[in-house]
Amino acid sequence: MLANNPEHVMNLKDLKFENDLITAIAQDYKTGEVLMVAHMNKEALEKTMETKRAHYWSRSRGKLWKKGETSGHEQIVHDILIDCDCDAVLLKVEQKGGACHTGYRSCFYRTIEGKIIGKKLFEPEKVYKNR
Amino acid sequence: MLANNPEHVMNLKDLKFENDLITAIAQDYKTGEVLMVAHMNKEALEKTMETKRAHYWSRSRGKLWKKGETSGHEQIVHDILIDCDCDAVLLKVEQKGGACHTGYRSCFYRTIEGKIIGKKLFEPEKVYKNR
Repeated sequence: MLANNPEHVMNLKDLKFENDLITAIAQDYKTGEVLMVAHMNKEALEKTMETKRAHYWSRSRGKLWKKGETSGHEQIVHDILIDCDCDAVLLKVEQKGGACHTGYRSCFYRTIEGKIIGKKLFEPEKVYKNR
Repeated sequence: MLANNPEHVMNLKDLKFENDLITAIAQDYKTGEVLMVAHMNKEALEKTMETKRAHYWSRSRGKLWKKGETSGHEQIVHDILIDCDCDAVLLKVEQKGGACHTGYRSCFYRTIEGKIIGKKLFEPEKVYKNR
């Protein structure tokens, strides 16, 4: 159960942000499917904890980004794990709709050989980039 | 099934390395447990594909690093997935021993509240940092 007050977190100040960012992996909290990897700044992490909805830092747009903001494909955060050297977080999430702007449930829908193995949930007709 | 010849890979040249590195997540190929996140350069990815053993680029030591090189805690790679924007790879691995140099099976053995939830497999008495 995720504490919704960042003050109650033991390790937040110990996290190692690199250029103000930390790597964040989102994983389906039930199936274990890895859905996406993105970045968070401190504010994104705090917002995520406070609202229990995943927030990231968009490097391309240079702004805080609530996952599913326009698409509705939000991520309800059940737990956040941190790694041994405190430079990555793993979000255990309940993914609404698809995590990927391409319409697939996971951004990892292809093998490195180019074979599609993911499940497509919607056609990305609207160019909202799954924000 | 992972092709062991990087030449046979459709997307290798399309991968986006940032400062010569790409984010690599290792996940247990059976249970889905996320074990660690690290970086790969092109050589590490090629070696991983050729040998089916995970290789990474150690930023702290500035060198290529075969996971389990000295500890024996290697990762047999069953598959490699790439994400939608080609800047991260997900390794589906069979983890020998523990992935984490602290002795835990996964590097993500703590919640952000500081609660230990991981399984400890060994005491890290030897300071080999699980290389």
